[in-house]
Amino acid sequence: MQRYFVSKNNIATDGHIIITGDDARHIQKVMRMRPSDRMICADNSGNAYQCVIEACGDDQVHAYVQNKLTADPELPIYVAIAQGMPKSDKFDTIVQKGTECGASLFIPFQAERSIAIWKEEKKDKKLLRLKKIGKEAAEQSHRLYIPEIVNPMGLDQLIAFSASFPFRIVAFEETAKSGEQAVLPELLGKMHRGERLLAVIGPEGGLTLEEAQKLKDHGFALCGLGPRILRTETAAVYLLSAISYHFELQQVR
Amino acid sequence: MQRYFVSKNNIATDGHIIITGDDARHIQKVMRMRPSDRMICADNSGNAYQCVIEACGDDQVHAYVQNKLTADPELPIYVAIAQGMPKSDKFDTIVQKGTECGASLFIPFQAERSIAIWKEEKKDKKLLRLKKIGKEAAEQSHRLYIPEIVNPMGLDQLIAFSASFPFRIVAFEETAKSGEQAVLPELLGKMHRGERLLAVIGPEGGLTLEEAQKLKDHGFALCGLGPRILRTETAAVYLLSAISYHFELQQVR
Repeated sequence: MQRYFVSKNNIATDGHIIITGDDARHIQKVMRMRPSDRMICADNSGNAYQCVIEACGDDQVHAYVQNKLTADPELPIYVAIAQGMPKSDKFDTIVQKGTECGASLFIPFQAERSIAIWKEEKKDKKLLRLKKIGKEAAEQSHRLYIPEIVNPMGLDQLIAFSASFPFRIVAFEETAKSGEQAVLPELLGKMHRGERLLAVIGPEGGLTLEEAQKLKDHGFALCGLGPRILRTETAAVYLLSAISYHFELQQVR
Repeated sequence: MQRYFVSKNNIATDGHIIITGDDARHIQKVMRMRPSDRMICADNSGNAYQCVIEACGDDQVHAYVQNKLTADPELPIYVAIAQGMPKSDKFDTIVQKGTECGASLFIPFQAERSIAIWKEEKKDKKLLRLKKIGKEAAEQSHRLYIPEIVNPMGLDQLIAFSASFPFRIVAFEETAKSGEQAVLPELLGKMHRGERLLAVIGPEGGLTLEEAQKLKDHGFALCGLGPRILRTETAAVYLLSAISYHFELQQVR
């Protein structure tokens, strides 16, 4: 069933929902939905409802809540991906696939070897685009929350920002090459539901030794993501899949 | 260091290597390598060597083996991905990322809901293209083997083919929605190094109930890949990452 995120302000306590903007147009023009058709609305605050359309207007769709959904498709831990800025449109892929796999926050990280630099005048447009991709991927994958995407950060800013994360890792190719594999499962084994993990992933050329060392000095654990060399746009999906497997598949046993 | 796959026939027992074709041109024209430059050559039979270039000719590069590499970046189990044929160029992405993540075999699977159909006259060209993508991804990710890509199969052919796989699973969205999560870790827990797993993944619209039931009747376990709905091109990467986490990261402890 088609899903939409609706501002909490547009969901009344009596269950009446107003959908506006692009989504209202999408419901009517693309999905060609009509009164009595059903859809799912999520409020980006942890709730999702099965709804029935009451009326379609020019720029608005009115619906009412039929029942609240009980499924919780969110990862048990909060995962932030600090992604070394990659080339071309790879960040689009990373946000789309990373959202599907459960990431809660993306931080574009201006690494030493990042070739792409977001020009100031294009930054807002790029962020808007990534946020839209995140919202659509959250709808498609049945998430309850749209991931946040913040302004790009340099290394020092990222380290300052990381203070609110009790668990911090760096996916470091050189660590992987040296055969280190146990850090990630050991760290996940220490984490509990609701805790926060920040993961730094390098750009195409990887992180420099200096960047990795500085992050290590600030409490980041260097870890490998298996013995194969992953492209930068594959690393976040690998990590999030491993986290899902650990917390959602293995621990239900 | 740059890596190339070289036919075993072109690696003499005295360590002399001849590289021909596209790779010889790539070494000279793209990488601009010259005698005494080093590279890695893998024989697609489990061996990789650090080599030194001796001489560059028109269509050939001659090199000699300096030492054999000992790293083994192959997944401990053999994983075949039977991928429901997806739309547009998504199969390219699946082969590229799936190879990075360790898959050994890709089977294009003509599912009931597959919209794309490979026309007979284009089939060979498409297979060649996927094989090239697989080879390049294997080089980039430091694999020892190039994944195999076979001709498209229908459901009955796939079931007959699956007889050589003692472990068989189907990633089924309806199973995931019903909250089933334990099948995959239970199955991986039973597998040992070198054993063979065949995983069926549906196309964009998913598998039909009839397809899933028929596979189940033939010994395939239906399994969920976490509580979020993954796009068809994300499912193989999720699965392979979970397998890597299980066998390569957790079991080294």
